Amino acid sequence: MGKRGGHRGFRLRRFKRRSKPGAAPGVVMVDPVAPAPVIRAIAYGPSEWIEQPLASVADAEPLLSKYPVVWLNIDGLGDAGVITDFGKRFGLHPLALEDVVNTHQRPKVEAYDQHLFFVARELMLRDRLETDQLSLFLGRNFVLSFQEYAGDCFDPVRARLRDGAGRFRTRGPDFLVYALLDAVIDSYFPIVEQLGESLEAIEERILSEPRQADVARLHDIKRDLFQIRRAAWPLREAINSTIRDAHPLIADETRTFLRDCADHTIQIIDLVETDREVSADLRDIYLSAVSNRMNQVMKVLTIISTIFIPLTFLAGVYGMNFHTDAGPLSMPELLWEYGYVTFWIVSILIAAGLLGLFAYLGWMGKGTR
Amino acid sequence: MGKRGGHRGFRLRRFKRRSKPGAAPGVVMVDPVAPAPVIRAIAYGPSEWIEQPLASVADAEPLLSKYPVVWLNIDGLGDAGVITDFGKRFGLHPLALEDVVNTHQRPKVEAYDQHLFFVARELMLRDRLETDQLSLFLGRNFVLSFQEYAGDCFDPVRARLRDGAGRFRTRGPDFLVYALLDAVIDSYFPIVEQLGESLEAIEERILSEPRQADVARLHDIKRDLFQIRRAAWPLREAINSTIRDAHPLIADETRTFLRDCADHTIQIIDLVETDREVSADLRDIYLSAVSNRMNQVMKVLTIISTIFIPLTFLAGVYGMNFHTDAGPLSMPELLWEYGYVTFWIVSILIAAGLLGLFAYLGWMGKGTR
Amino acid sequence: MGKRGGHRGFRLRRFKRRSKPGAAPGVVMVDPVAPAPVIRAIAYGPSEWIEQPLASVADAEPLLSKYPVVWLNIDGLGDAGVITDFGKRFGLHPLALEDVVNTHQRPKVEAYDQHLFFVARELMLRDRLETDQLSLFLGRNFVLSFQEYAGDCFDPVRARLRDGAGRFRTRGPDFLVYALLDAVIDSYFPIVEQLGESLEAIEERILSEPRQADVARLHDIKRDLFQIRRAAWPLREAINSTIRDAHPLIADETRTFLRDCADHTIQIIDLVETDREVSADLRDIYLSAVSNRMNQVMKVLTIISTIFIPLTFLAGVYGMNFHTDAGPLSMPELLWEYGYVTFWIVSILIAAGLLGLFAYLGWMGKGTR
Amino acid sequence: MGKRGGHRGFRLRRFKRRSKPGAAPGVVMVDPVAPAPVIRAIAYGPSEWIEQPLASVADAEPLLSKYPVVWLNIDGLGDAGVITDFGKRFGLHPLALEDVVNTHQRPKVEAYDQHLFFVARELMLRDRLETDQLSLFLGRNFVLSFQEYAGDCFDPVRARLRDGAGRFRTRGPDFLVYALLDAVIDSYFPIVEQLGESLEAIEERILSEPRQADVARLHDIKRDLFQIRRAAWPLREAINSTIRDAHPLIADETRTFLRDCADHTIQIIDLVETDREVSADLRDIYLSAVSNRMNQVMKVLTIISTIFIPLTFLAGVYGMNFHTDAGPLSMPELLWEYGYVTFWIVSILIAAGLLGLFAYLGWMGKGTR
Amino acid sequence: MGKRGGHRGFRLRRFKRRSKPGAAPGVVMVDPVAPAPVIRAIAYGPSEWIEQPLASVADAEPLLSKYPVVWLNIDGLGDAGVITDFGKRFGLHPLALEDVVNTHQRPKVEAYDQHLFFVARELMLRDRLETDQLSLFLGRNFVLSFQEYAGDCFDPVRARLRDGAGRFRTRGPDFLVYALLDAVIDSYFPIVEQLGESLEAIEERILSEPRQADVARLHDIKRDLFQIRRAAWPLREAINSTIRDAHPLIADETRTFLRDCADHTIQIIDLVETDREVSADLRDIYLSAVSNRMNQVMKVLTIISTIFIPLTFLAGVYGMNFHTDAGPLSMPELLWEYGYVTFWIVSILIAAGLLGLFAYLGWMGKGTR
Repeated sequence: MGKRGGHRGFRLRRFKRRSKPGAAPGVVMVDPVAPAPVIRAIAYGPSEWIEQPLASVADAEPLLSKYPVVWLNIDGLGDAGVITDFGKRFGLHPLALEDVVNTHQRPKVEAYDQHLFFVARELMLRDRLETDQLSLFLGRNFVLSFQEYAGDCFDPVRARLRDGAGRFRTRGPDFLVYALLDAVIDSYFPIVEQLGESLEAIEERILSEPRQADVARLHDIKRDLFQIRRAAWPLREAINSTIRDAHPLIADETRTFLRDCADHTIQIIDLVETDREVSADLRDIYLSAVSNRMNQVMKVLTIISTIFIPLTFLAGVYGMNFHTDAGPLSMPELLWEYGYVTFWIVSILIAAGLLGLFAYLGWMGKGTR
Repeated sequence: MGKRGGHRGFRLRRFKRRSKPGAAPGVVMVDPVAPAPVIRAIAYGPSEWIEQPLASVADAEPLLSKYPVVWLNIDGLGDAGVITDFGKRFGLHPLALEDVVNTHQRPKVEAYDQHLFFVARELMLRDRLETDQLSLFLGRNFVLSFQEYAGDCFDPVRARLRDGAGRFRTRGPDFLVYALLDAVIDSYFPIVEQLGESLEAIEERILSEPRQADVARLHDIKRDLFQIRRAAWPLREAINSTIRDAHPLIADETRTFLRDCADHTIQIIDLVETDREVSADLRDIYLSAVSNRMNQVMKVLTIISTIFIPLTFLAGVYGMNFHTDAGPLSMPELLWEYGYVTFWIVSILIAAGLLGLFAYLGWMGKGTR
Repeated sequence: MGKRGGHRGFRLRRFKRRSKPGAAPGVVMVDPVAPAPVIRAIAYGPSEWIEQPLASVADAEPLLSKYPVVWLNIDGLGDAGVITDFGKRFGLHPLALEDVVNTHQRPKVEAYDQHLFFVARELMLRDRLETDQLSLFLGRNFVLSFQEYAGDCFDPVRARLRDGAGRFRTRGPDFLVYALLDAVIDSYFPIVEQLGESLEAIEERILSEPRQADVARLHDIKRDLFQIRRAAWPLREAINSTIRDAHPLIADETRTFLRDCADHTIQIIDLVETDREVSADLRDIYLSAVSNRMNQVMKVLTIISTIFIPLTFLAGVYGMNFHTDAGPLSMPELLWEYGYVTFWIVSILIAAGLLGLFAYLGWMGKGTR
Repeated sequence: MGKRGGHRGFRLRRFKRRSKPGAAPGVVMVDPVAPAPVIRAIAYGPSEWIEQPLASVADAEPLLSKYPVVWLNIDGLGDAGVITDFGKRFGLHPLALEDVVNTHQRPKVEAYDQHLFFVARELMLRDRLETDQLSLFLGRNFVLSFQEYAGDCFDPVRARLRDGAGRFRTRGPDFLVYALLDAVIDSYFPIVEQLGESLEAIEERILSEPRQADVARLHDIKRDLFQIRRAAWPLREAINSTIRDAHPLIADETRTFLRDCADHTIQIIDLVETDREVSADLRDIYLSAVSNRMNQVMKVLTIISTIFIPLTFLAGVYGMNFHTDAGPLSMPELLWEYGYVTFWIVSILIAAGLLGLFAYLGWMGKGTR
Repeated sequence: MGKRGGHRGFRLRRFKRRSKPGAAPGVVMVDPVAPAPVIRAIAYGPSEWIEQPLASVADAEPLLSKYPVVWLNIDGLGDAGVITDFGKRFGLHPLALEDVVNTHQRPKVEAYDQHLFFVARELMLRDRLETDQLSLFLGRNFVLSFQEYAGDCFDPVRARLRDGAGRFRTRGPDFLVYALLDAVIDSYFPIVEQLGESLEAIEERILSEPRQADVARLHDIKRDLFQIRRAAWPLREAINSTIRDAHPLIADETRTFLRDCADHTIQIIDLVETDREVSADLRDIYLSAVSNRMNQVMKVLTIISTIFIPLTFLAGVYGMNFHTDAGPLSMPELLWEYGYVTFWIVSILIAAGLLGLFAYLGWMGKGTR
């Protein structure tokens, strides 16, 4: 990689499947290098609010019995025991739990008897653009969010819960799930805008100064757009099916908000599609500009060669050793007083004539002519 | 940009999202540089008509109580208070209001309890082709239209309202919404026609005189077509869903007119698709013509070189210094009276022979042969 | 255009929209240069038949009261009054009338209370392939057909009505509409066949003699196929929806005939798609053949150059002026009796050797080798 | 064609439409050069079986009254009278009869009151791959099969009827139709396999020895695959719609067999799609290999030229005629005893140095490096 | 193949269709070279478990009467008798049996009265990636699995049955079918991951060192991805239709597991699509990098030639034999004491000037400039 300088490479992060092929379904096998889980609870009702770290799922019991809505966020999936504990306490389906730790899931929603299970992907700008899995469980009075690593895009949601502004705390856990999904989608926008600006910067100079580094850069951008598309497209379908299928855990009012959320996802997809089209176009312009420049170079060089070739022939002629005394037709020019001067005049006339001809034929114009 | 002369660049206008990621939904955050709102009311019934500027939404009350239909047009979205006032007075949904000020929405229709909310995009030929957002609210006896900037395509509609010709004033606010949407779509036609004429002009000369400026121009056209398509395609879906879903605010008769309106949108999309296909084709012709010209140039130059190379060799031969007195086989030509003349004759024969051979092989024809 | 000789250009005919953007809907604004309407009536029943020109729509009254089916054909749309008269007499919807004079409509069918409105496009081989609009109104006892210009593909239909052969005259106006639509589609076949033959002719020679004129010709063909596709595809949908939606004006038996008609449209589309694929393929073959020929030329020329370059060097060596009397190693060849002959022998051996090497390496083969 | 040797050309067989545009529907107009019909009857029941040629449709009456199933096969469509007779005797719809003689129909199924009408296409390897039309009528106790020419793929079916093995003779005419359609589809497999083997043969050598003949061959294969796809795709839809739409003439048990038949069609389409993708890929590999070879040639030739150019310059220098006696700096090399030897040594060092440099830069490697 | 070294070729394995075209349906015709069947039974209930080889289908009777679930696995399809015996004992439909031995079926599910019939394809990395057919029959108390060759991906399933861990043995045969299908899909993952790593390795070096071997490798990968896609896509549809269509043999609980299984298939398809896009992109980068390198080479070589051509002309001039005594203007330079030195100085200045000019024009930069 170092060899290629700023080029971050086209590769999409390869997932590591944790389960062995053919293993029993619904078994939680954690990634040995995944960070240990850190549990953080936010519980709230219309008038009260509490936020505290938890040591284990058991510590959540008092909150669950006291507050209308409890949101447990787990950062780090490195401990199978903790995750299984959550599964037992909240009656989560084993297949869903397995999906939580196999963090290469596509965004989706799955309805189980007692809960809804959402998977979304958070965009993370680390060394390159990566997507982390966010697993959400929505129950009657709780929301569980499992994330691969600490650090997320939910701080504005937490701030709004703390503020108690608006009617947020008066709504149920379904609204919290909406708020979290919307925060995920909203976090896509700055990244898409940044990619768009990179495209503009490339476009600005590509016609005048095509550089191969731009090809690599365009590929990086294309890869990133592809990542975002893979994150946004199935999420949109998941949200739409949540809106469509009347699930008792989703209130009607929340449905309106989810519609707005789906709308944002469509905007993301729309922007990504536009940028993909633009980047394909820039690539074509690049190729056309490069080939144009190269042709210009070759043409000019060839014109120079072509002008000198007849002149060299002429010089060769008068370098021939035919004996001037063999007869009156044997290179009499060599004996003529102005022969040499005439040679130069003729040479310059030929060169000028050829240049004029090429110019007349339009072969020396700028651009592609 | 200046460096590239007339090339306006491929960039689509990047939207500026006003809400922070994760912000509370339904909050109106205006663009600080947006112009201040200017409210203008047109109220009418079958026999009366009034048109006046309003200082605030409160000033609309007398009109609303007196006239069957009140159309309030707001140019400029720079004051959150004014927009929130409209929201309160007309019971507009906060999510819809948020969409009004985030002016990067795709065209759509959304049904709320008390009103229908339409988003369309007006094409604006400023420095380049841009699209401004038009937000329409249709209520029982009012139509609200929010526009980003002063200047729109509704003057013909206003003229028809003033004239009172036809049955316009006898119809409800739903017909006014149709008329506004139709005016938006109609305003696309001259722009599409203009792009089509640009394509024709390029096509007219591209085979005989391919120029790189045409590539840039084709990209501009492609970008503009893409913009129009993004504005027209979802609008068509929105209109179709309005026709399909029986909403009490839309009269049956208006539905027939909306069908006509959807028909116009399909025509726009059809023309845009045609032009996109034509521009892709022109691009291919351009590349083919350029490579043809370049090959022509290179071939002619190479032919010239090839003719002189054997001649130069021949001249070189008779420039060799083998001593003519070393023996009878040692360059006896140099001593021959007609040696030099023969050299020229042979040279001319070789050149003519090669030219003839190339001509015979068809390498010197015009075109690609 | 003249510059490009036989090339008719790729341009699709640009429509001229008659209505101003934002104009009132349903207003008939005729093209000032359109020809004046010529009305021609054919009225018939099982046993009688009459054909006569009409001066105005009022003249049709006696026919309408006497004959079961009256077909009024109007060639030329240059008089708004005449068209509005038809609208009034037959109760045609203003939006449909507007579509009649705005002759850029896509093929479609629209159901109104008292009539069905069809739009189809007739292919016309004028200077280039163009499509004229055919507007058909089907009422209880009448068929109105509006055409842009005199001259159509309906003569066989008229002949069959005159002959009274088959059961044509015993059927209702819906069968006449079917017969007219079928005549339109049938008229597409000879044009598609002709385009197919042009493709075959190009294909026949393109591998051996690629010519740039073929590129222009292929583009013309592609444009024409595109035109036909735009005429046929929506027509098929219109016919299918007529078959599907049970409209009282269409008898069950006619539906079977319309199915046959839709079948013909599919055949047209199928042929057009095939030809489009073939023409794209021919284009690829052309490019491949051209680049092959050009490479051949360049290669042969380069081989010639390459052979002479070492020879010229050799001649240059023996043209050097090292003094032969400077020492025994100073160009002793020049003094050797057979030096010059040896030079020629060596030169010929080098040339032969290089030619042999190139042949051995397969660089002189025919084709792309 | 002869010029191009084995290349059979890309052309699809152009159909000849027999009906004039605008002609009356349902009229049987035969191709004047089509062969005269030959009628052959096979009639059978569980225990008996008879096979005999018929002179006319009237001769079929005794068979129809005696045997449960009568299969009449007609080879050759050159006699309108015979075909009309069949139409009258079996109550065939005129539009279906018209389709029988216009042998360019797409595969389809059409339900009429008294019979089902199937169209399929038989692949025929004549001079090139062609498709003949097979028209099948299924009635209560008969099957009619119309074919364009003698010679078909039904011999195995006839053999199974003669053998009386299995339960074939105990089933109704619907099973016979299934068996005929299945025989048609089965006959596609060997042809697709053969095309696949051709592709493999081309692939085997295309990287090492790209030849332009392969381009022509790939186009032939592509054309043939296209033909097969056009025959198989609509046939699959026709069979599926037969399975789906419960028609009384098709027994439930036969439906299971038709499902198997549709499955075979999908396999054909799948193979054709795979081969199309492979042939597109081979074309790309061909282009890449050709351009690679050509570049190799040009590069080596250019390297040779480049090496000799400085040497020729050097020889030119010492061929200059500066007088050695003009001064001590005026070409003293010419007088030096080892000047000439040194020239050669320097020349060889320059050549070796350039070769070494080119090798070091990786310009002389095999492949594209 | 050996000629091309490591290139395994693009060919997909050509199937060999066993049935003759037009043969009777439902006849089992085995491949003469297929291995002889080896039957292996695993029978189990909640508390007991037995695993044993069987000599014939008759030996299964005791197991079938004793155990709730009997799984008979048959490796090798070389004996029509054995397969027909199974068909008779378990009431398998002849068409399904025919599909078992014609091992080129697409993945599918077919519902028969007494059983469900699944076809899936196992990926096998032999000399190249191949797919073997797995045919599964699910009955009330049995599962039959037919495989082409010994060696499969079911060992983890067998291990789980032996262990008796989880509730596997308490579930019905439908869960066993799910487990087998899931094992097949799970076995796709390591192969897709391996292909992804190959793509990464190619990507890592393709910009700096494009090699033609990479083209061949990319084609191999593309072919393999295509194979996997052909195996996974229809399998997903088959599983989805099993979930959707309520078949009594599939318990509701198993449906949830099948949904998980379908989810895995979508992940496979998603990865394959991503890799296809990446490999297409790598191919484009390869072509761009190759053409870039080649242009670099040609350009540098041409620059060298261009510099020497004027110098050679100059040397030619002073090699001319104009007599210095013909007059004062006849090559007086030859007599000048510093003429020769001046020649060299001028030559070096010209060369430096040209190099400087080329550098100034940006023709000597690295990359494409």
